[in-house]
Amino acid sequence: MSLTVVGSIAFDSVQTPFGERERMLGGSAVHFALAASFFTEVNVVGPVGDDFGPEQLEVLSARAIDTSDIEHVSGGQTFFWRGHYDHDMNVAHTDETQLNVFAEFEPKLSAASCESQMLFLGNIQPDLQRRVRGQSSASFSGLDSMNLWIDTARDSLVAAIGEIDCLLLNDAELRMLTSEPNLVHAARATMAMGPSVVVAKRGEYGAVLFTEDGFFAIPGLPLEEVRDPTGAGDSFAGGFLGYLDAVRVAGDHDDGALRRAMAYGSVMASFNVEDFGTARVAALGEAEIAERLALFKRLTHFEAS
Amino acid sequence: MSLTVVGSIAFDSVQTPFGERERMLGGSAVHFALAASFFTEVNVVGPVGDDFGPEQLEVLSARAIDTSDIEHVSGGQTFFWRGHYDHDMNVAHTDETQLNVFAEFEPKLSAASCESQMLFLGNIQPDLQRRVRGQSSASFSGLDSMNLWIDTARDSLVAAIGEIDCLLLNDAELRMLTSEPNLVHAARATMAMGPSVVVAKRGEYGAVLFTEDGFFAIPGLPLEEVRDPTGAGDSFAGGFLGYLDAVRVAGDHDDGALRRAMAYGSVMASFNVEDFGTARVAALGEAEIAERLALFKRLTHFEAS
Repeated sequence: MSLTVVGSIAFDSVQTPFGERERMLGGSAVHFALAASFFTEVNVVGPVGDDFGPEQLEVLSARAIDTSDIEHVSGGQTFFWRGHYDHDMNVAHTDETQLNVFAEFEPKLSAASCESQMLFLGNIQPDLQRRVRGQSSASFSGLDSMNLWIDTARDSLVAAIGEIDCLLLNDAELRMLTSEPNLVHAARATMAMGPSVVVAKRGEYGAVLFTEDGFFAIPGLPLEEVRDPTGAGDSFAGGFLGYLDAVRVAGDHDDGALRRAMAYGSVMASFNVEDFGTARVAALGEAEIAERLALFKRLTHFEAS
Repeated sequence: MSLTVVGSIAFDSVQTPFGERERMLGGSAVHFALAASFFTEVNVVGPVGDDFGPEQLEVLSARAIDTSDIEHVSGGQTFFWRGHYDHDMNVAHTDETQLNVFAEFEPKLSAASCESQMLFLGNIQPDLQRRVRGQSSASFSGLDSMNLWIDTARDSLVAAIGEIDCLLLNDAELRMLTSEPNLVHAARATMAMGPSVVVAKRGEYGAVLFTEDGFFAIPGLPLEEVRDPTGAGDSFAGGFLGYLDAVRVAGDHDDGALRRAMAYGSVMASFNVEDFGTARVAALGEAEIAERLALFKRLTHFEAS
């Protein structure tokens, strides 16, 4: 079993009501890979610049993540994002984006990355996502995107969605993509584009899974400490696809496995937001994950009589 | 067992993306009473005008709701609300409010209403809520409110909250009331005001229960038909408190009963929004309620391994 992720590798400067941090390691591929690394073997594909050094690489290597497809662009600078959150931490406000080495990124997957059974296309330009999908022989692939690409590259995004198995998107973006105000109709319209699995992410409110057989919903865990939501969606995707890859049942839509994957995704997202950047997830232990899964189980449990 | 509700009895004119209706029977006491009537005996207290006739009364009587404390103000007009919803149906936009007979309302509970074991104070001016609480000998009382009273009558509202057992409020309003951006902290600050049970309502995202022992969360049911969310919060409260009254365990904070009550509240709210006004809830059958409870159980169920 192994899982390849393509996405941004970044430095993030983030301000929230609970503090601020400069140039933390971040990016969709990084948050995804760290979360998935607790379940399966992970290969990361993406470009970095001269400012990306051994300290950053060590965060990934310490989790036994394969970094050999991280491309070092000599003379370049790593993707940079600066943003802030007000009291409504569901909404990220972007203050600055520097594409840097990402502007010229042309993904080249090694043989090992091509042969992963599972592929995750993090939130990058949809034509790039398609070129990665074309190189991979994965039997199951997931894709994340954002409102920017719905606005500026909708046709490419719809084509990319047509080539993958599982779409993970914010619920508002699913509605926007399909022009369907009702989430059930939006999910169905998305499945008509190709994916057999659609996950509507809802920030602190949790997530909903849609398949041809029905749906499953999991609320967010009410947390006392929410310090930085950046990367939570990618940590969710990492727990979700990482678990599915580990149990090797993604392809056959095993309902029980998909539900458990939703729970593991929620577990990883809930850790992600408890501290800035990758701090909490990178330092997690297996026992904490099992304990929090039990907490999620208890969170929603009721006896019908 | 019996439950008394005080709140608005109204005519609502509502426009949503799925249609519009003029002068439907509505109001917090009406939506609450109809939902609660599937679980326990309900007495409704509130004023109406000359425009409130046998047709409206029959909607309540058909569900065996005791209407003898509905006060007919001769020469007056019933409370009127006009509002609309855009694509985000979580947000109601008020276009017109006519207090009418509500402007001079002075609640007078009959002996039967005073002696109910359970009391629900629907969303009305908090000093009125306190005068009703003072007349009642209920052993368990719930209260709903809104941003208007947090803005204009905060001290009265805090005093009212200090006299009840269970607060039901939108999550944003809980944060506003306590100036706590974190929901767990907001719930704890609210419990410090008096109530031992706090329910954060989240519209289509579901609801969260907080007690001294912990929390429980239930997502909203993904519905294909959401035609009019007006009254959903009151239908939730009606299912929640109606069930607790029926099982007579509200006072001792039985965790299992509170969790089931959250599920029944969610069931009644999910029916409420499927049609305009009271149409769907007033015409419900017991079997539909049991079936939907099972759907909620299935919605969130996962096996941990």
